[in-house]
Amino acid sequence: MKKFLAEIDVMPKKEILDPQGKAVTGSMKNLGLSEIQNIRIGKHISLEIDADNAETANAKVDQACKSLLANLIMESYSFKLVEVA
Amino acid sequence: MKKFLAEIDVMPKKEILDPQGKAVTGSMKNLGLSEIQNIRIGKHISLEIDADNAETANAKVDQACKSLLANLIMESYSFKLVEVA
Repeated sequence: MKKFLAEIDVMPKKEILDPQGKAVTGSMKNLGLSEIQNIRIGKHISLEIDADNAETANAKVDQACKSLLANLIMESYSFKLVEVA
Repeated sequence: MKKFLAEIDVMPKKEILDPQGKAVTGSMKNLGLSEIQNIRIGKHISLEIDADNAETANAKVDQACKSLLANLIMESYSFKLVEVA
């Protein structure tokens, strides 16, 4: 049994309005950082998973994203998996 | 003027309890994914920044993280910067 670390990004889809990101983009201007634009805010999730090999770990993380971590109607996800032990 | 894309992760510090992550870790068990543990949930932020060079862009993104995007008492941040145009 190996241990893997998954780093998952869950972001609002491009065609979906991101009001939180829009608000923070506006605040950047007040901070004198008007060069910063198009902020989009999503979730970053890190987790550990025990699996026999990278393929199994990959499939389990994908299942976790699909069934719980991401709302596929409004969000898309991507992840990286690294073996830690 | 070049355009850079920054991908920022803002995570709760290790010594800080992450109740959202704990709750989701519990839900994994109900989904039959008990191999998944130690879930921690933070924010992923993507933004565009106009700057003359990568050093300036880096400094501006760092400033944005420190002053607005991350609460440094409870959260730590890391980011990657890539030139897009």
